[in-house]
This record gives sequence, C-alpha cells and structure tokens, in this order.
Amino acid sequence: MGVSLKDVALRAGVSVKTVSNVVNDYPHVTPGTRRRVQQAIDELGYRPNLTARHLRKGRTGIITLAVPELGNPYFAEVAGAVIDAAARHELTVLLDHTAGLREKEVLVSQGFRSHVIDGLILSPIRLEGEDLLARPEGPPMVLLGEREYDAPYDHIMIDNVGAARTAVRHLLDIGRRRIAFLGARRESARQPAHLRLRGWREAITAAGLVPDESMVAATEGYDRADGAAAMAALLDREDRPDAVFAYNDLIALGAMRTLVERGLRVPEDIAVVGFDDIEEGRYGMVSLTTVAPDKAALAQIAVDCLVERIAVAGGGEPPQPRRILPGYRLIVRESTAVRRS
Amino acid sequence: MGVSLKDVALRAGVSVKTVSNVVNDYPHVTPGTRRRVQQAIDELGYRPNLTARHLRKGRTGIITLAVPELGNPYFAEVAGAVIDAAARHELTVLLDHTAGLREKEVLVSQGFRSHVIDGLILSPIRLEGEDLLARPEGPPMVLLGEREYDAPYDHIMIDNVGAARTAVRHLLDIGRRRIAFLGARRESARQPAHLRLRGWREAITAAGLVPDESMVAATEGYDRADGAAAMAALLDREDRPDAVFAYNDLIALGAMRTLVERGLRVPEDIAVVGFDDIEEGRYGMVSLTTVAPDKAALAQIAVDCLVERIAVAGGGEPPQPRRILPGYRLIVRESTAVRRS
Repeated sequence: MGVSLKDVALRAGVSVKTVSNVVNDYPHVTPGTRRRVQQAIDELGYRPNLTARHLRKGRTGIITLAVPELGNPYFAEVAGAVIDAAARHELTVLLDHTAGLREKEVLVSQGFRSHVIDGLILSPIRLEGEDLLARPEGPPMVLLGEREYDAPYDHIMIDNVGAARTAVRHLLDIGRRRIAFLGARRESARQPAHLRLRGWREAITAAGLVPDESMVAATEGYDRADGAAAMAALLDREDRPDAVFAYNDLIALGAMRTLVERGLRVPEDIAVVGFDDIEEGRYGMVSLTTVAPDKAALAQIAVDCLVERIAVAGGGEPPQPRRILPGYRLIVRESTAVRRS
Repeated sequence: MGVSLKDVALRAGVSVKTVSNVVNDYPHVTPGTRRRVQQAIDELGYRPNLTARHLRKGRTGIITLAVPELGNPYFAEVAGAVIDAAARHELTVLLDHTAGLREKEVLVSQGFRSHVIDGLILSPIRLEGEDLLARPEGPPMVLLGEREYDAPYDHIMIDNVGAARTAVRHLLDIGRRRIAFLGARRESARQPAHLRLRGWREAITAAGLVPDESMVAATEGYDRADGAAAMAALLDREDRPDAVFAYNDLIALGAMRTLVERGLRVPEDIAVVGFDDIEEGRYGMVSLTTVAPDKAALAQIAVDCLVERIAVAGGGEPPQPRRILPGYRLIVRESTAVRRS
C-alpha cells in the first residue's frame, strides 16, 4: 500500500511516464530500462491500481469480445490481437463465445453482464439486422467480422468480395481453369461465404470464362472435417477441379488432407488457396497459399473505435457510425507454387 | 419484463426444469422439446436473468480462466472446454492470458479484477511456489496445468512422467532406438518439459538402453517455429535420430515441416510423436501420433472444484486441497505407423 508510480520512478531513476509505459506493456521501452523499472517495482512491491483508476471514472476497465468459436485459430489469433490492443488502453478483455448461435449472439448484443463491462466488441455470424435494430440502450458496441449489416454501429471488416477475387485471379494466373469453391452455405447474400463466392464468380467472369456452379461445394460448418468431406464429394465427379479456393484455411487444410489420401498432389494436380493466414497453414507438409487479413489492424481499429465510444458515452457527441475495411494481402506458398502453364 | 420461467413452461407445455435445461444449454433435451421451448421463449420475449440471481447471492456469476497463450490450440481447446463446463453451472468465463510472464501470473493469482469475479482457474507456467504462498486472501482459486507446486490449492494436471513414458515406449515398440526429445528447456525439475524428459529417460532405461543426452534438443518456446529449428539442429548431426518425441504437438508439427524440407519421410526415416492431441495433428499430410489428455475431464473437474470452493467461501468447511490427475491415452496415427522391425 502507498507505493506510487512516482516512488517507482525515483527508485529506478526514470520518469513517471516511463514507469507507466512499462506497467502498461507499451513498446518503445529499451530492455535495460524495462529491467530497471521492473526491479524497482519488485523491490518496492508496487502494484498498479488500475481498478481504482477505472472505478473513479465509473467504469470497470473491462470490455467483452464475443466470437463464434475459439476452436478456430483465426478467432483465437484475432482474440489475442484484441487483448493486446486493449492492454494498450489499460482494458481487460472478457472473452465470450457464442458458438455461432443466434440466441447467444442476441443475448450478448443486448448487454448480458452489462453491469460489469464498459463496452463490447461482437463478431456475429447468425445475428440478424432486426436483432441489432431492436437492441436496447446498453454499453457501446462495435462490430467486428465479415457479415454485413445496415445498423448504426462501427463495423470493422475485410473486403470479402475483393479479397476472394484476388485469390481466384491468382489461380487463373497460374493457368487453372476448373476452380472449385469450397465452403458455400445456403445463406443470405450478406453472409461472408456468399460474399467470397461472389468474388469467385467475378474473377472467373472477368477472365472471360463462365463460372461452373457445379464446382461450388457447400459445407455444414467451417472446420477441417467440413473441408475434407466437401473435397471428397467434388473428387467423385467425372471432371475433377484443378484448383480449389476455400472459404477459410481450416476448410483448405481439410481438403488437402483428402487430396493426399486420394493420392493427388498439391499443387501439381490440384492447387489450393485458403483464407485467414492461420499459423498452421505455414507449417503443413505443403504450406498453404492464403488471403491474410491484417488481424492486428482489425483488432486495433475495433478497440480504438470502442474506446472512443466509451469516452463519449458519459456525454458528448458520438461520431457517425463508421465502416472500416483494413487491408489484406495474398501470401503465395507451396500449395499454388507451380509454373504458369 | 415480468416473463418468468414458469410462463415459458406453461406456453411450451413442459416443466420449469425443462425450460431451465434449455436456457442453460444442458444436454438431455430432445431437439423437438428444445425447439418448442425456444419458440415459447421467442414469443414471450423471455430473457433469463442470471445476473440478478447471482447478485442475490453476493456473486457476479463470473470466473476467470488465465492461460499462458491463446495462440496455442491446446489452450484454446481447454478454454472452450472450461467455458462449456462453466455454462453448466451458469457461470460466464472471463478469459485472461498471461503470455507466460511471471509478473502477469502473479498479478492474476493475487486477484486482479477480483471485485468482479467469484473465482479463478489459473494455468501457470512461470509462477513460483513462493508466489502462491504469498497470495493474499482472495477469491477461490484452482490450478490447472502441468507445473507442480507444493501449495494449498486444488490442482488438476496430467501425469506428465507416465504419459511421456507411454509415448517413448511406443517408439521403442516399433523398433526405434535413437529417439530424440524435442522441447527441453533449462528450467526447474517441476516444470512439465522436465517431467516429460524424465519420462523419456525412464522409458529408454526400462528398455535396457542408455539415454543419449545429446539427443535432447532445447527450444526457446513451445511453438511450431521452435520445433522446426530444433529439428534442423538435430539433423546436422552425424548419427541422426530415427524417432522424435516432442514436448507438444506444435513442436512436433514444426519438426515434421523441417523433415519434409530436408527430403526425409515420416515415419519411414523418422517417426514422430507429439503431446496434446490438437485437431490440427489429425489433418496434416501425415497425421500425428500423440498423447491425448482428457481435456473435457480436465476442464470439468477444474470447474467443479472451483464451484465447490465458491460455495463454501461464504462460510463452511473447505475441503482439503486435492491433486487430481485425469486420464490420457496414446493415439497412434500415420507419423508412427510402420511395421515393427
């Protein structure tokens, strides 16, 4: 008790600002300084009292991030990035998972546990626009993710159509003509799978070809097992595809497992492109070409938008709802690394 | 407002207990009943008021789970299992990640955000026994994970030595004699890497062989990149190993990537066994043999222990601290599927 930031600064021979930077894990502190400050913290037994600081402002210092599933490494990686971005604002993240169920997404969006959170970042899959419009007053909320809505909330998302076009154009560029799409679902036109399918169609049409809708394979879910099953179904056709664009990396990786089981070579027989750039895709026996969303930017922008809205929630003019599309890039790896035919 | 569980039960024509089961996502409700109850909930606009129920008991209904990193699928899978187990007790999980830093583990164990949580499940890596003994009064805490402590807390963990022995004995059984261990770290004898290394030594000794300590490769961390680098270092030796037991699946998968880059076959040239049974290992080009901890049991027991301690925290005799070791099994896949020589 009673040890202040200033005491630590005096002991370490640095400024209060530098101690604060160390305590909050900000970058731009040299390792030597960090060590000296940490030593002073240890010697004095200083414990940052973020709780009190937040409570003085009538806040808890906690935000919720609700994602459809933690088992998908993409969401785990995004969650890690959100936690890092939140820490830079001295915020702790309460992580919730909705299992992609509409009821749970509604529950979360309507302020479940709202007495302990300052704000909410929601990554919805099944939530409908009407659910958002029916949302009662609650803590500030920011949407993160690929489903489109007409609702007055900041929304951080990838340009799904454009990114899918880039991926499919790459497959056309390496000479592939029978390009399958894995991971379509019977769902509304504003769902991400539908948007990526539109990108597939646009790229093929732009190349002067006609999209072959029989090359579109639906999946039940978005997991490896779904990709493996959809690939198996496509291979039972007479004219099998010479390339696959998968809705996400997990589906692509499952599809590649089926290809190896059938004795087909990637990329020689069938080239494969995924979406998400999860770390696993970099380490497979055949590394995976993929569309890499800028996850750090997604997370940082989502947290910054939320922090801005939390700041004005007590009074002040909130900014207009924004739709922000951070960048992405195509990362070419072994699964498409063939000479142009 | 004002819609009760009983109203929903009347509308759906089921018992209040059944409605509660549906609301809490318990199993053993038929799909038809679930649909009927959900319809009644939607029609009446019922919203379960868990918050109020918890607050009446002086609780928040929130527990923290602190893991070293979410980027490792093992922890993401365990976190998912804990969230499921907690939901069965109507508890929400606040997920925290410590990045495996001692300071952060101390901060979490000492009750960071303790004003909003009923209890804490901590999976420590760097925390020392003295940190635990110095822990002030705080919400009930249960330890989960592989590092050993002498401290008065329930601790749910795997039998690391026994599980490692099982893995290495399997490699001996398929005729391998030069078995490397990947993922050792210069650390205390109570750390999991050290315990698994002990199992490696015991299995080799029990087979009448002498452990070759030059076959033990240290890694900086526990990721794919660490496994890839350690494998590369081992392959530069004159007498390369004919098998690898890796500390975890990520290290094993990184090692397999190095093997394929060097033109070596798995399992013919080098057989590989991992530890964790993450889903990724099932879908590689060569599926991975691994030690599979019973993650659902780990999570369930940890939550049950914590719930019991939360219940007696208000008064009553707490049970003696327990050390509970849920089971594990060896899952043999392609990475060791060779005939006995």
